[in-house]
Amino acid sequence: MRQKKVLMAAERKVTITAIAREAGVSVPTVSRVVNGRSDVAPETRAKVEELLRHYGYRRRTQPPGDRAALLDLVFNDLDSPWAVEIIRGVEEVAHAAGVGTVVSAIHDRAGAARQWMTNLRARASDGVIMVTSVLEPLLHKELTRLGVPIVVVDPAGGASLAAPTVGATNWAGGIAATEHLLELGHRRIGFIAGPPRLLCSRARHDGYRAALEAAEVPVEESLTVPGDFYHESGFHGCRRLMELPEPPTAVFASSDQMAMGAIEALRQFGLRVPQDVSVVGFDDLPEMRWSAPPLTTVRQPLAEMGKVAARTVLRQARGEEIDSPRVELATELVVRASTARLGG
Amino acid sequence: MRQKKVLMAAERKVTITAIAREAGVSVPTVSRVVNGRSDVAPETRAKVEELLRHYGYRRRTQPPGDRAALLDLVFNDLDSPWAVEIIRGVEEVAHAAGVGTVVSAIHDRAGAARQWMTNLRARASDGVIMVTSVLEPLLHKELTRLGVPIVVVDPAGGASLAAPTVGATNWAGGIAATEHLLELGHRRIGFIAGPPRLLCSRARHDGYRAALEAAEVPVEESLTVPGDFYHESGFHGCRRLMELPEPPTAVFASSDQMAMGAIEALRQFGLRVPQDVSVVGFDDLPEMRWSAPPLTTVRQPLAEMGKVAARTVLRQARGEEIDSPRVELATELVVRASTARLGG
Repeated sequence: MRQKKVLMAAERKVTITAIAREAGVSVPTVSRVVNGRSDVAPETRAKVEELLRHYGYRRRTQPPGDRAALLDLVFNDLDSPWAVEIIRGVEEVAHAAGVGTVVSAIHDRAGAARQWMTNLRARASDGVIMVTSVLEPLLHKELTRLGVPIVVVDPAGGASLAAPTVGATNWAGGIAATEHLLELGHRRIGFIAGPPRLLCSRARHDGYRAALEAAEVPVEESLTVPGDFYHESGFHGCRRLMELPEPPTAVFASSDQMAMGAIEALRQFGLRVPQDVSVVGFDDLPEMRWSAPPLTTVRQPLAEMGKVAARTVLRQARGEEIDSPRVELATELVVRASTARLGG
Repeated sequence: MRQKKVLMAAERKVTITAIAREAGVSVPTVSRVVNGRSDVAPETRAKVEELLRHYGYRRRTQPPGDRAALLDLVFNDLDSPWAVEIIRGVEEVAHAAGVGTVVSAIHDRAGAARQWMTNLRARASDGVIMVTSVLEPLLHKELTRLGVPIVVVDPAGGASLAAPTVGATNWAGGIAATEHLLELGHRRIGFIAGPPRLLCSRARHDGYRAALEAAEVPVEESLTVPGDFYHESGFHGCRRLMELPEPPTAVFASSDQMAMGAIEALRQFGLRVPQDVSVVGFDDLPEMRWSAPPLTTVRQPLAEMGKVAARTVLRQARGEEIDSPRVELATELVVRASTARLGG
């Protein structure tokens, strides 16, 4: 069965290209129609659908009864408690559907992505969920050619991706965190940014700026320091903020791990959280309830995002139409003990 | 190919039973020989090997080139940063071997284990790594019958398991943590235990007691409180210790998550760590470097344990002999900022 399936994929590859040429549209457009995406003009969809039928293109339907379905869940790195939350959500939906969840990490190591693609072809995966923040365009093209449906969780590749995406309301979360600090009377609010190449980083940063502007608090560039979402960068970023001639009274770290690093930096300066400096994080990893002090943070529903991604990719694999190419789940401010009224 | 493989498994099931009967040994003994385990008497092995050859029993060798190999990694629950460390180790070894890692959680929910077993058969997994702390005997028997090699990570089912196991030196770790506190001058050392049904819990507890006895410090039963390895139980356990008429000056929490809960309880009592009370954990989850204060703990090499388990199960799947049915990787005390000299 496996062998046959791989051959089918090869035939399909030829057919999609031929159909695109004949319809006078791009390969991604044909792929959108095949994957049940709604963002295709009705007349284009009709033309492509007709050619698909004409050439007997076999849309993926239910996996045949004699083989088990598999879903690939791919991370850049498996090095954060963040990952286990997504895995938990995906696994729950896949398990209930009798589908196995194959977890992989494509490191920055050369060749790893290629090796993964080889493995994926060999196991004839029914769908791919990518949690790689930056989706390599070549990889994406190859999956599209193979006709394997893809869903991207919180991508940073921009809206031009031909794959449905599941994210969180990062911009609204950035606003909520900043407004909370403004309401507590803080005016000098430091911001520790994530990697600028990631859309989610930029959205959180823009939310921070938008909230300040709405409150007519000037945005000072020196109050924003770079970070990469990991602990260490939060530690160094917070040190830089505290060494400013006029340091901030509150810090919004745009990930929980950076917030932990910031709190450790403050502890080493002999500053108390929240009495001397307030700290807000972003993510709400489960252990943040138990940090010292328990962290005020913006909850990102990671497990739920995994669930939505799994449901979406399974629907695509069955050839069903999906609701929307872009789903953003709501973030929510969770107030705990790391923030306090200015001078309170 | 998949279908054929499942049928082969069914034939094998009959054959193993027949071979056991004819050799006058138990089914697990035949399974041990098939899986290359060394704990079988030479004459028994010779007799079984001969019968295996006679009946043309097909030992699993390299997966045929036309299908992708899969390895199942099974947890009780995917609800701890602990899990991602194991996944990382297993995935690294499996990925390099071109093998996919299927991650599952068998919850305590009724039927989930059965569903998993059905899925596993359908995908014809080449091997299973169980991180379920308590291995359900029925599940284990069924896997043995199917001829699927199993490796258990840190099991609690006792030494009678017919599967190789990978663990850590929990007892030595319990000693190291307690000796560290004794060397700092502490004599009243509280202990927050893990679930008593788990061997690893009991080994850590015994290490604590052994270190106290070696130092001729009386073991007071009231200084041991129950826990379940999760944050909340560490919080409540530490409260109970601090409410004793003569509270301890140091707490050894036998998991990092319980140590976090303990530190939060101390904070709520207005006690400082480590100035007023020292705290030691167990695991060394990556984020413990960044707890406030950074946690002194016993490092358990979780990713490495995952790697050893993956290598072992892949060797078994290729029909190779394995080195030892029980491997224990060394734990190591990591001293950070949550422990201090008594009265210092």
